[in-house]
Amino acid sequence: MEFGMVVSVLGRLLMVEAGLMIPALLVSYYNSGTDTNAFLTSIVITALVGFILSQAFKTDKSLRAKEGLTIVALGWLLVSVFGSLPFILSGSIPSFVDAFFETVSGFTTTGATILTDVEILPKGILFWRSFTHWIGGMGILVFTIALIPKLGGGSFQIFKVESPGPAPDRILPKVSDTAKVLYTTYLAITVSQIFFLLIGGMSLFDSALHTFGTVGTGGFGIKNDSIGAYESHYIHFVIGTFMILAGVNFSLYYSIFKGKWREVFKDQELKLYLGIISTAILFISLNVHYEMYQNFALALRDAFFQVASIITTTGYSTVDFNLWPEFSQMIIFALMFIGGSAGSTAGGIKMVRLLVVFKQIRREIAKIFHPRAVIPIKIGNKVVSDETVSSIFSFLGIYMVVFIGGSILLALEGFGFETSVTATISALSNIGPGLALVGPAESFNIFSPPGKLLIAFLMLLGRLEFFTMIALLAPSTWKKEIF
Amino acid sequence: MEFGMVVSVLGRLLMVEAGLMIPALLVSYYNSGTDTNAFLTSIVITALVGFILSQAFKTDKSLRAKEGLTIVALGWLLVSVFGSLPFILSGSIPSFVDAFFETVSGFTTTGATILTDVEILPKGILFWRSFTHWIGGMGILVFTIALIPKLGGGSFQIFKVESPGPAPDRILPKVSDTAKVLYTTYLAITVSQIFFLLIGGMSLFDSALHTFGTVGTGGFGIKNDSIGAYESHYIHFVIGTFMILAGVNFSLYYSIFKGKWREVFKDQELKLYLGIISTAILFISLNVHYEMYQNFALALRDAFFQVASIITTTGYSTVDFNLWPEFSQMIIFALMFIGGSAGSTAGGIKMVRLLVVFKQIRREIAKIFHPRAVIPIKIGNKVVSDETVSSIFSFLGIYMVVFIGGSILLALEGFGFETSVTATISALSNIGPGLALVGPAESFNIFSPPGKLLIAFLMLLGRLEFFTMIALLAPSTWKKEIF
Repeated sequence: MEFGMVVSVLGRLLMVEAGLMIPALLVSYYNSGTDTNAFLTSIVITALVGFILSQAFKTDKSLRAKEGLTIVALGWLLVSVFGSLPFILSGSIPSFVDAFFETVSGFTTTGATILTDVEILPKGILFWRSFTHWIGGMGILVFTIALIPKLGGGSFQIFKVESPGPAPDRILPKVSDTAKVLYTTYLAITVSQIFFLLIGGMSLFDSALHTFGTVGTGGFGIKNDSIGAYESHYIHFVIGTFMILAGVNFSLYYSIFKGKWREVFKDQELKLYLGIISTAILFISLNVHYEMYQNFALALRDAFFQVASIITTTGYSTVDFNLWPEFSQMIIFALMFIGGSAGSTAGGIKMVRLLVVFKQIRREIAKIFHPRAVIPIKIGNKVVSDETVSSIFSFLGIYMVVFIGGSILLALEGFGFETSVTATISALSNIGPGLALVGPAESFNIFSPPGKLLIAFLMLLGRLEFFTMIALLAPSTWKKEIF
Repeated sequence: MEFGMVVSVLGRLLMVEAGLMIPALLVSYYNSGTDTNAFLTSIVITALVGFILSQAFKTDKSLRAKEGLTIVALGWLLVSVFGSLPFILSGSIPSFVDAFFETVSGFTTTGATILTDVEILPKGILFWRSFTHWIGGMGILVFTIALIPKLGGGSFQIFKVESPGPAPDRILPKVSDTAKVLYTTYLAITVSQIFFLLIGGMSLFDSALHTFGTVGTGGFGIKNDSIGAYESHYIHFVIGTFMILAGVNFSLYYSIFKGKWREVFKDQELKLYLGIISTAILFISLNVHYEMYQNFALALRDAFFQVASIITTTGYSTVDFNLWPEFSQMIIFALMFIGGSAGSTAGGIKMVRLLVVFKQIRREIAKIFHPRAVIPIKIGNKVVSDETVSSIFSFLGIYMVVFIGGSILLALEGFGFETSVTATISALSNIGPGLALVGPAESFNIFSPPGKLLIAFLMLLGRLEFFTMIALLAPSTWKKEIF
């Protein structure tokens, strides 16, 4: 392990983070907020530590896989620690554990909050809180390495590890070009959503913050009733639609941009994604209409929003689905595992993995009848290699093991079965709310400090899709090289 | 599909079942029970239908995989329908759906009951109810085909499909010899347990019935408080120990018989099994001692029994673990997924699959650092083929899909999240009790008839490990052969 290399990149990462705090500082200054000094101090500390680290261990060696992984895992921890400074220094969230929880929840685009009243927060803090979603959605390290030339093979490793979903396509041969395309798409979606929200009569500040939470699939609300604070059907529709857009594989937008519409219409992952969304909306709206709502159109509107929010792992809410009938809640619970598409900002198991699971099951059944047949698994025209299939299944295995293990540990808090189980899956899939005591109208403040740290760790595990964090704990990562 | 072949074997299966009802008839007659006529009638009907079916479609073609699968799937349904006759005709369980539920629960060795008072049942019915566990534990079809000479390749298919666990070893080259060894082992364990219970002062009738429930890992109680009705530590210890013995791969007993102790001590599945049991007992007894029990020895005794009962998917109880602290309950919940060893009578995902999952995850992590390395997955000295690994993962995939799907459907009954989720996993893993409203002190009678049928279907899916039942529904099973 080249520690010098790792520390140096981590230093630059902190400098980037300090830079990313500047917009919040400006917002605070512009609104003469009480949090201006907190941002100033945070920026100085973060930049200073970053500068020292990056200079002290300067090196020109190139990155390998091992260093790449370590940088991502430690980088996310470090960014979350320094990112919580504004919350602590401004007094908005005085406890370190709470501030760390909120920041991890922000960067991992989970959106679970320990706050019970967000409307009293100063504007700079509100901005920073939502902005962490926007930063975390695309991954801060991909951005950082794009700024550092000549990092070598490990930079693809970082890109691979930080992007959600298995084996991301390089849309273009060079990592930095692919990153550029992705960031441009991200920016374009962001600008469009702000535009549509402004049209709906929302203020620029509120539009921007809601957009950060939407396109990053984060879900921190800036009203105590989340999106439920807005009565306008239009606002529900715009945010709901953009959540769904943010859960689509971004490479499809590039295909559209290049005029390759056929690729989009034939995309199996997109079909499955839209299929599951429509089915869930249909069943929930019927169930909710039958059991609770007089008005079917209203049931449909609320089912649409909540399904979009959960499957994309955003976590905004317009109603308290904790009060829905159990059948609808169980569908919501199932969606919590599934998540959005690979190559989007969404979390969860993701569509493409589900597709491979279905195809593998079908293959297994076919093999009962034709034991000697060799049946390849295909997605579109591409054959999925056996290696990718088994890496997808390892992912599922670890998902289940961590889900069960997390639920057992969280049960020590004693808030009941449903709360423990749904808080764990909500953290793992980076959603935000769960059911029961962690439902959309509740807060994660009920948990003890160790419980909060456990949940924050689950969020990081889920965001980085396990292997990064686990590899960091593997002894071989820290061994001196022999060969 | 050779329908004649299928129907003919199914006919013989019913004749075997009629024969297996005779012991219950004798018990009933000996006790001058009110249920003697019910057994007589059931035996005549079952034998007659069986005889007609077996003669009407006599054929000497040999079995292939497709017929084997169909026989297993339809056979289990048919045996459950006819097996419910004594319950209906004796008036013990007048409703067909309830009687079918109880019989499926018996044959699949689940042990979930719709009865609230079992102590009023006539002795013949009690005997038949527990005897279905003993029959189902080893599989009734393996027994039937052992009686039919020259069935061809499909008989191994039946053996493979009906035995719990992936790719069962043929202990001896011939299926019928292997079946003989397994049944002898089964009988030996049964006799030993009855012997040990008799020593403890239990009556022969009670000893035999408790033994059927134990070695088949079924769990139907004959007292309303299950094993909790006995205060003797000795009884708890004997039944607890035999549950654990019934969850061990039976081929290990053959190794012991052959004096190959080394193979037993080196067996990785056994180590994992005992390791998980000890860990679970340790954590639960500490947790229960800390929160509820003054006496640690008592906490240890109850933790031992309940862990043994759940991991082997038996479902007996000595205490109502529904009242335990949440941490212990969540461990119980986790054990519900895991289950016993392959080649035992236990249900669930099973140790050997878990072992492969762990090894696959470790391989995946190793591959991050050495992307080009070829790392085989080994259990003991044997390399597990990639095909077996992917079939294990398909099993896990389908387990999760059915678990989630079942929970959603069961949520329509509206008994709450914890009840729906644990009733589903309890049925799938053939355990018996779940948590909340389906806890050890409760009954499955709360569910509506469609709910009961759904749960019975989940039991069958779990017992036959999915693919059999699903393949039965696949259109290709019913197509006319072209090649």
